[in-house]
Amino acid sequence: MANKFATREQDYSQWYNDIVINADLAESSAVRGCMVIKPYGYSIWEKMQAVLDGKFKATGHSNAYFPLFIPKSFFQKEASHVEGFAKECAVVTHYRLKNSDDGKDIVVDEDAKLEEELIVRPTSETIIWDTYRKWIQSYRDLPILVNQWANVVRWEMRTRLFLRTAEFLWQEGHTAHGTREEAIEETKKILEIYTEFAEEWMALPVIQGTKSPNERFAGAVETYCIEALMQDGKALQAGTSHFLGQNFAKAFDVKFLSKENKREYVWATSWGVSTRLMGALVMAHSDDNGLVLPPKLAPIQVVIVPIYKKQEQFDAVSEKAEAIKKELEEKGVRVKYDNRDTHKPGFKFSDWEFKGVPLRIAIGPRDLEKNTVEVARRDTLEKDIFEVSDIANKIVHMLESIQSNLYQKALDLRNDRTHTADTWDEFQEMIDNKGGFVYAHWDGTAETEQKIKEATKATIRTIPLDGKKEEGKCIYSGKPSQQRVVFARAY
Amino acid sequence: MANKFATREQDYSQWYNDIVINADLAESSAVRGCMVIKPYGYSIWEKMQAVLDGKFKATGHSNAYFPLFIPKSFFQKEASHVEGFAKECAVVTHYRLKNSDDGKDIVVDEDAKLEEELIVRPTSETIIWDTYRKWIQSYRDLPILVNQWANVVRWEMRTRLFLRTAEFLWQEGHTAHGTREEAIEETKKILEIYTEFAEEWMALPVIQGTKSPNERFAGAVETYCIEALMQDGKALQAGTSHFLGQNFAKAFDVKFLSKENKREYVWATSWGVSTRLMGALVMAHSDDNGLVLPPKLAPIQVVIVPIYKKQEQFDAVSEKAEAIKKELEEKGVRVKYDNRDTHKPGFKFSDWEFKGVPLRIAIGPRDLEKNTVEVARRDTLEKDIFEVSDIANKIVHMLESIQSNLYQKALDLRNDRTHTADTWDEFQEMIDNKGGFVYAHWDGTAETEQKIKEATKATIRTIPLDGKKEEGKCIYSGKPSQQRVVFARAY
Repeated sequence: MANKFATREQDYSQWYNDIVINADLAESSAVRGCMVIKPYGYSIWEKMQAVLDGKFKATGHSNAYFPLFIPKSFFQKEASHVEGFAKECAVVTHYRLKNSDDGKDIVVDEDAKLEEELIVRPTSETIIWDTYRKWIQSYRDLPILVNQWANVVRWEMRTRLFLRTAEFLWQEGHTAHGTREEAIEETKKILEIYTEFAEEWMALPVIQGTKSPNERFAGAVETYCIEALMQDGKALQAGTSHFLGQNFAKAFDVKFLSKENKREYVWATSWGVSTRLMGALVMAHSDDNGLVLPPKLAPIQVVIVPIYKKQEQFDAVSEKAEAIKKELEEKGVRVKYDNRDTHKPGFKFSDWEFKGVPLRIAIGPRDLEKNTVEVARRDTLEKDIFEVSDIANKIVHMLESIQSNLYQKALDLRNDRTHTADTWDEFQEMIDNKGGFVYAHWDGTAETEQKIKEATKATIRTIPLDGKKEEGKCIYSGKPSQQRVVFARAY
Repeated sequence: MANKFATREQDYSQWYNDIVINADLAESSAVRGCMVIKPYGYSIWEKMQAVLDGKFKATGHSNAYFPLFIPKSFFQKEASHVEGFAKECAVVTHYRLKNSDDGKDIVVDEDAKLEEELIVRPTSETIIWDTYRKWIQSYRDLPILVNQWANVVRWEMRTRLFLRTAEFLWQEGHTAHGTREEAIEETKKILEIYTEFAEEWMALPVIQGTKSPNERFAGAVETYCIEALMQDGKALQAGTSHFLGQNFAKAFDVKFLSKENKREYVWATSWGVSTRLMGALVMAHSDDNGLVLPPKLAPIQVVIVPIYKKQEQFDAVSEKAEAIKKELEEKGVRVKYDNRDTHKPGFKFSDWEFKGVPLRIAIGPRDLEKNTVEVARRDTLEKDIFEVSDIANKIVHMLESIQSNLYQKALDLRNDRTHTADTWDEFQEMIDNKGGFVYAHWDGTAETEQKIKEATKATIRTIPLDGKKEEGKCIYSGKPSQQRVVFARAY
């Protein structure tokens, strides 16, 4: 099955697309740039949602829901915000269709033109801060710790399944605080949640840092982010947490009476991760045989495939398979017994392999005799014969081993592809030929950042939080710099 | 607190609105007809979602996600579907904003006009059946049992929080089957799920039935529904499950190769419940003191309020309160200990009462001496002193008692307000003066149905599934009829 599809070597981009489509994760729809997330793909997203939602709630956040539409005038209230989003907005202008005059067509009813256009939300700061004005009077009303799971629309011109789509699903947290310090603390707390999620659940090592001014969220004072490295050496931003200062409070006139009885503007944060993480998950671990899923996020962790010729063999194998399934489920393992009689074992093997199921158990008549099963690991493609006794504990242990192995592989890959450049020539050579993260000195100006981008297509992915202070010279301008930043070409 | 707000007697509609807003369920937004669902309200919706989602999955359904936008041409493919939705569509016509020529404003960029307008989905049959065409080749691909949790938009002119909003949240199931029988069976299976959910979780008795042709979903062959009665004697449709026949398969050319090797059109169902259920939940049980929630859906089932004057009393009471909280949580009860020092017990009592928390436990210094607590039931407003020993089991028992009491009260109300009319005069009098459900004979024609609606504002809510066959004469036309149908004025 796998050799029908592109390998990473042949065509990385096609390889990615083949996996997304043929592992039944998502596909393009009839609407330009909008995808259909298929049941198997959506079930992975549901796992991601459940974990993140649990972490948000455990840290005191509640979910709420705000309107899909944002009045155009709201956008204009925060200058850099509208600048950032105006060029990629879906605009609702009318609220009715009607029969055309000749009765042959359905057309927009020009009598049903909206007085003010509505923007389909690309992000919800404006509508939410318009609402928070009504919710916040005194310090007693703070903090507000709200999250929303929603769809958003950004009219991207070049789209790719999961990575960049006109409509995508995400969560957006929007919090309100009485002090600058508390808001910054919240921003960092969320960055920690995102980091834990990426590393412990997605098995994806990330660098924590802040964004350079050019890459900052439109309306933010500071953008914190986590950056991951994909197998092709390109970086992918896996989550952002913004300290918004008082920008939106000022734009929407949201003040509170402090304990000291002063009216002050409220401090804000916003933060989000999206279905883009699905793209990161695919690209981080998959191989030329298809999708590879970390066990913690796999909808099916173990698939059991029966090997048989005669009905009585099937019955005997099924009995054993069901017993093992039950034993595993009691340990909390998600198991599928693939007893379809419409497909042969070979097809099932490559089907589940391509769909990234971490472990496959095959059971045939000879296994019954010997009280064994064959277990195949998706990450290493190793096969082994196991005694059935204590099988559940062995499987649980193997799933843990796969989870940590995937993390370690991704970390090794990142380490292999992390470089340090001290000169402009070195830098260009590394970006062009080696890819990956390049740590280099930068003079801190937006102008230099832009010039480097134009020359190399590499951008500053992040100014790492754990980066050590070190005197140096900007690789481009030669001006002094105190810290290396992380450059890469990026998704 | 309660007397600040309207009573049911004074103004039922205002009473409803006061509860929705002041119990922190939802509020109107700056966007006409769109609401903000506040954290407390949203947490109830999340409970509803979790229960329904569990039931869908237990019956073999998976979630997926389809685009928010629907090309205008898709609507036109199913004639009655476009007829039903064209007049209330939000239409996206452009994909960019720009600075106005004088630089003072942001305006729609006329150069960014879409070739084909996109409709914000009012429901997703068309985009989904366009997708299913790609998923279905043979009988082996069937059935497809997919559900989607999503936002939809119907540009209603008169809106009311939860009951009728331009944007609302819902689930929409869309299934594809190889036979008519299997599709009808699916439609009925879902109707059972909705019924169980309404009765066992919302404590809301419902009538199961089908819709008359006038009230059928646009594109359906048969619409099954559950109908509930509110305290003001008006009916509310609480869920619909549609047998769509082959209408959408024909419109989108979705055929499959049957086991008999014939190419046949696929059979379809669709079904949904929405945030409208939140409105039903509020209206079904609440009273003049505010919201009343059935324990199974209450985000907080028990609130514990400390009574104290001195800090040492607070400490002692808190110790007891935390111990009881822990004991209750071990039994799976959702408990909040309201230890805010910014509010007095009296405020807390009426605050939680207004928010519909099923049980309140108050603990003061005298309770500590006697090893008792005061327990107040929200449904009956009764208070009682309980020994603390075995408190968790007593509370669990009371929660069950409240759940069944609310159902019984709602059932009694419905029975009291269910009438039988045999003549037109009787019918009119009942609709005008008694309200509620009126069982009456109808000749089966859309024309009569329309005339009755114009004369009385009552519509046929449903043709009950358990209605006995009975010869009779239509109350309006006098023509023969075989079964009574259920009339009411409705939300």
